Amino acid sequence: MPPDPKQHLAIVLIDTRNPLNIGAAARAMSNFGFFELRLVRPYSVAYEEAVSAVGASDLLRNARLFDNVAEAVADCSLIVGATGLGHRVFEHPLYRLERAGRLLRRHLQSARAAVLFGSEKFGLSNQDISHCHWLLHIPTRPEHDSMNLGQAVAVTLYELSRSPAAARRLPEAAERATEAELERISLLLEQVLQLSGYSDYSRETSAHDKTRRLVHRLCLTSRDAAICTGMLRQILWKLTHPAG
Amino acid sequence: MPPDPKQHLAIVLIDTRNPLNIGAAARAMSNFGFFELRLVRPYSVAYEEAVSAVGASDLLRNARLFDNVAEAVADCSLIVGATGLGHRVFEHPLYRLERAGRLLRRHLQSARAAVLFGSEKFGLSNQDISHCHWLLHIPTRPEHDSMNLGQAVAVTLYELSRSPAAARRLPEAAERATEAELERISLLLEQVLQLSGYSDYSRETSAHDKTRRLVHRLCLTSRDAAICTGMLRQILWKLTHPAG
Repeated sequence: MPPDPKQHLAIVLIDTRNPLNIGAAARAMSNFGFFELRLVRPYSVAYEEAVSAVGASDLLRNARLFDNVAEAVADCSLIVGATGLGHRVFEHPLYRLERAGRLLRRHLQSARAAVLFGSEKFGLSNQDISHCHWLLHIPTRPEHDSMNLGQAVAVTLYELSRSPAAARRLPEAAERATEAELERISLLLEQVLQLSGYSDYSRETSAHDKTRRLVHRLCLTSRDAAICTGMLRQILWKLTHPAG
Repeated sequence: MPPDPKQHLAIVLIDTRNPLNIGAAARAMSNFGFFELRLVRPYSVAYEEAVSAVGASDLLRNARLFDNVAEAVADCSLIVGATGLGHRVFEHPLYRLERAGRLLRRHLQSARAAVLFGSEKFGLSNQDISHCHWLLHIPTRPEHDSMNLGQAVAVTLYELSRSPAAARRLPEAAERATEAELERISLLLEQVLQLSGYSDYSRETSAHDKTRRLVHRLCLTSRDAAICTGMLRQILWKLTHPAG
């Protein structure tokens, strides 16, 4: 069995000031199944507060601390910096997250990679960026492209977790009603409407089709089809037993 | 010009308790260009703190307050609930975000939609869900699928903002070196290596090709090609003027 590509990715937070942001990044990592958190020069109070916070996960306690970026990414063969566009001109290739995610996923199949996130206030420094092979950019509005750190980590890890193929076969999706269930409802509805005087099904032949088409358009689940069948049966009973 | 589909979407936060979460959701909306925020029964202290916070955006001040979900989504023709899977069995169709995003984007082309987010502690109630046409689920780990509210909003809006086509033509990407630039570097490198005694280009004919292939594999930008050319020219000068 191949190793989980997600275990090949290190998230590296550089010069983080706010303990809430370290905790938020760790939570997003746990949500999406990434566990390798590395902190470069975190403001020490921030790191201690984050770890001692109620609910701090193993992930946060297992985070590794480094004095500089070079040591934090020494075992990785692809280093990517996450950055806003700001007003800087970058010498590095810069990819939108959609494309960066594809490149990262491919690399993680067989080798280790790191994504670097800079401080809340200044982002990545030019020195941080000098360690990167390329940069990624989350497609925010140019007028407001500075994202919250935890949200930027969450969005990046979501992109790496996307799987349109898996999304097509979500097992929890409610099961659609079968043709037999819909036919039973159509016939019951016909009887109810006929008895109620809504339409004369014995004269208007297209009424059958209209009723069946309506029932099909409802997109009923199997479960809801059973509920509707029960409702119609009860109404039918009352219509045929008015004094009951 | 058609109206911006993003302006057709309302983000509806229900029973939110923490002012930081309201602010975080508003920031994510502003980042991704969605501006219609609706709050149903926010814990009143939370709402006031969020609005009075330094940096509270117009978006937050323009948020509309409602007493119930029905009023908050009265003008929308598609209502979607965001939910974790938890241990609940849903009667509604449930789509992973990748697919839900496609369905939502299609609807927003021509009509209004709302995405509902429940309280931090309990998520959407069964009553909230009864207003929904279907549910969406962010693909988190089953063992830890409870997301931070602001992060869940950010990830959802990122999915709605994804554009693989736009990602392929990011104008800020550094320009690749031309063939002429790479050829110039190959020839200079050959001269330098020949003079340094690294390889005898006059005897080993495949050496030309090896050098050219190496230069191509470097994936140089036009800017970096100019830097490398300058470096090689200087080295070449020093090699031919050893006493200089």
